[in-house]
Amino acid sequence: MGIFQRFARIPLKSTYIWSLCRQYSTDLTAVDRALIQHRCVHNRGLGASPGNPGAAPPRLPFSRVTQEDLAFFRTLLPGRTITDPDLLKSSNVDWLKTVEVCPQGGNTGLVGGSVPVFDEIILSTSLMKQVITFDNISGILTCQAGCVLENLSNYLEERDFIMPLDLGAKGSCHIGGNVSTNAGGLRLLRYGSLRGTVLGLEVVLADGRILNCLATLRKDNTGYDLKQLFIGSEGTLGVITAVSILCPRKPKAVNVAFLGCSSFQQLLETFQCCRGMLGEILSAFEFLDASCMSLLEKHLKLTNPITESPFYIVIETAGSNATHDEEKLHKFLEEVMTSSLVTDGTVATEATKIKALWSLRERVTEALTHEGYTYKYDISLPVEKIYDLVQDMRGHLGDMAKNVVGYGHVGDGNLHLNITSPSKDPALLAAIEPYVYEWTSKWKGSISAEHGLGLKKRNYIYYSKPSEAVALMGSIKAMLDPKGILNPYKTLPDNIH
Amino acid sequence: MGIFQRFARIPLKSTYIWSLCRQYSTDLTAVDRALIQHRCVHNRGLGASPGNPGAAPPRLPFSRVTQEDLAFFRTLLPGRTITDPDLLKSSNVDWLKTVEVCPQGGNTGLVGGSVPVFDEIILSTSLMKQVITFDNISGILTCQAGCVLENLSNYLEERDFIMPLDLGAKGSCHIGGNVSTNAGGLRLLRYGSLRGTVLGLEVVLADGRILNCLATLRKDNTGYDLKQLFIGSEGTLGVITAVSILCPRKPKAVNVAFLGCSSFQQLLETFQCCRGMLGEILSAFEFLDASCMSLLEKHLKLTNPITESPFYIVIETAGSNATHDEEKLHKFLEEVMTSSLVTDGTVATEATKIKALWSLRERVTEALTHEGYTYKYDISLPVEKIYDLVQDMRGHLGDMAKNVVGYGHVGDGNLHLNITSPSKDPALLAAIEPYVYEWTSKWKGSISAEHGLGLKKRNYIYYSKPSEAVALMGSIKAMLDPKGILNPYKTLPDNIH
Repeated sequence: MGIFQRFARIPLKSTYIWSLCRQYSTDLTAVDRALIQHRCVHNRGLGASPGNPGAAPPRLPFSRVTQEDLAFFRTLLPGRTITDPDLLKSSNVDWLKTVEVCPQGGNTGLVGGSVPVFDEIILSTSLMKQVITFDNISGILTCQAGCVLENLSNYLEERDFIMPLDLGAKGSCHIGGNVSTNAGGLRLLRYGSLRGTVLGLEVVLADGRILNCLATLRKDNTGYDLKQLFIGSEGTLGVITAVSILCPRKPKAVNVAFLGCSSFQQLLETFQCCRGMLGEILSAFEFLDASCMSLLEKHLKLTNPITESPFYIVIETAGSNATHDEEKLHKFLEEVMTSSLVTDGTVATEATKIKALWSLRERVTEALTHEGYTYKYDISLPVEKIYDLVQDMRGHLGDMAKNVVGYGHVGDGNLHLNITSPSKDPALLAAIEPYVYEWTSKWKGSISAEHGLGLKKRNYIYYSKPSEAVALMGSIKAMLDPKGILNPYKTLPDNIH
Repeated sequence: MGIFQRFARIPLKSTYIWSLCRQYSTDLTAVDRALIQHRCVHNRGLGASPGNPGAAPPRLPFSRVTQEDLAFFRTLLPGRTITDPDLLKSSNVDWLKTVEVCPQGGNTGLVGGSVPVFDEIILSTSLMKQVITFDNISGILTCQAGCVLENLSNYLEERDFIMPLDLGAKGSCHIGGNVSTNAGGLRLLRYGSLRGTVLGLEVVLADGRILNCLATLRKDNTGYDLKQLFIGSEGTLGVITAVSILCPRKPKAVNVAFLGCSSFQQLLETFQCCRGMLGEILSAFEFLDASCMSLLEKHLKLTNPITESPFYIVIETAGSNATHDEEKLHKFLEEVMTSSLVTDGTVATEATKIKALWSLRERVTEALTHEGYTYKYDISLPVEKIYDLVQDMRGHLGDMAKNVVGYGHVGDGNLHLNITSPSKDPALLAAIEPYVYEWTSKWKGSISAEHGLGLKKRNYIYYSKPSEAVALMGSIKAMLDPKGILNPYKTLPDNIH
């Protein structure tokens, strides 16, 4: 997912690519090359302003790619240095259509973190899709950064294991990008964050050195845990080229329940009851509101399997004994139905039906893209507060917004607040921001729970982090990337004070 | 757990203490003061040598504490600035009796990380023992660094939650020290490492600034995750003063099985079977060998509850349904007994009996202290290799060692290798080291799985980390603590190359 700012005399790329080639040339010839795309130069970006802090900053004074540089890349990567504008066209728009860029790797991010802003050279890891090792005693997988998450999941399921993370974009996102952005997703409630499950990384630093911390040990307290620097730093401190990760056993039984609640308060009470009664087999507790369901029905022609409700819950259990799990789930459902916490529900134990129920949660993002333009917010809050923000925002925006919808990970206190409009609307944006960030900050929430800051949210960091912390982040960036050539304009704010 | 090298004109401590006082003086007057002990000056340390890399290095050219400095501290902390050698005597020896020091906080470390080497001023957080907040919906606890782990456990159990970590030293170790050393312990198999469960930290930096990253959110991807720098860095980058941590629900049912195996291979097969059949309710899989059992019987008068075996296993289950858990455990035991993987066993469901069985595992360390002098190694290896090291070491040392014993966390691939001798024996040490580290390095293990490097192991870091990684650690240290005043002589090697 790393994107490289082109730099005079290309000391970075040459060292990096040579290092990669040297390292893998013996046994991994089919995947040892990185795809370099040369983005056509756009001089966009008038700079972020108080009214538009997500705008691109002015281009920094990096030099431009010369014909000599291109000749060098072509020698290094014959047939893989792409500069033809027509060939680049299909890659120049990311899937949200908000940034004109040439993406690489999965390009499934939501904050413009994986796309170049000006004429940065793109380094794609999409050919680095090899599983290096898998140990079926420990469950530790080591693979290259360009492996697609779903491919890894399939690989592991054949071996009776699963990936510790799962997300809607699994069909295209890369594990290197997942780690670079510290992706959360649908299984975090059960298996924890990548900060715990990632055991090792191989990272290429800004000066071309390879940092080999690709350990496959559950515990290692020898010195500082350097890999943590690269998890979630969006490629601004180094480029992740390989990952080792601890994978759980594949559960023998999986059940999914899709339930309706008449209020968010009842949803929260259902959550509390669920944690107590399902305990260690609970693997997901997700929600969507009625507005999300309308969009799923309207744009994707999905069918609501239960009676209409203001709120819908997806609960997944995963365990080692089908009979026990069904008994626990049955008792729980009996409890929430008789106490009227839940108004209607359906349960699936068969794979196809499970997938269908999950798609009601996973495809909300996709349904939203059909609405015109979507302003997306990914907020962490104390769980009892998460829907207050949606309701407050509806009142605050009134008729200005086409839709204000909420869905997300109740178990993690993570709300996806989405506001739609027929097209980009600066007046609407001005009504949303900084209001939404001030609201979040007031409740000590995070303005980016799992999406990262990327380009779009970089200047809002102070709503969630004190200036001492941001200053220290700046020092870390300066230490690891003194020339600022790794994924510029991302993660850190334009001004560090 | 932070220990401060005394520095000219004490700019660090004054800022730090004042910051603490300012911050807590309103509502936490009872615990707002840190205990400063002034260690009597020992000019020990001839320096590490090839034959003794764990020896103290020469004292660095820090200035010495003046009467003026002491007067300043006495104004700041009336009655709490301790310099009387008699009063310090009881604190001048750590519990392993290997370093003559004045410990502070829990002082339960095993690698000399929490004790001053020369005349460093000690800053104790032992009075900072206040729980700040606990949210019984999210299970997030926020507390001061000096809270004793067992006190936190008791506090949580009354509220139907538990700490995500547990270790033998729980009665004295402090949560701040646990986090500073990234302590592992007995529940890591189930709840993961502190890198995942610690959600926020308050840290005092070397220049006295307070870094407030005391978030209470499960997810937060706004910029770099600074708290990870302080987890496991043994107080060399900053002093942790408060912690927020995600706590699991208290399980409704806990069972402990104590089993005997006739070979380590059978023990490993039992582990594989156990993971499949107990799945999500498995919370610990620990082992000790017959030599450990002899020491428990001899020195602590504990009774072996089953017939003598070469290996013993402690399995703990923790779940939400007693009937289901007992059924799973029963089926598992039936399987391993009929297949003769396990030769004998006993099960406890009642708290007192559970505690008695656990003490057979938890008190091995204590039993070893009665043997004379113990050389302690805390090794991560691929799980199938962990006992090979014990057996290899027995052959290698022959009669030189009194005892070579192995115990530890099978589920985490973590062996505690302990070698005893009637007293310190340089010839024995020379036979053990670097042999044990070379052996570990050959199998790509870690020479410190959970204990850290501290003073004793600092110069062995290159056996587990490449020089690029160590160099980067040095850069991080230089960035955060340019004068080198935080816990000097610890964690990083004397020479970074």
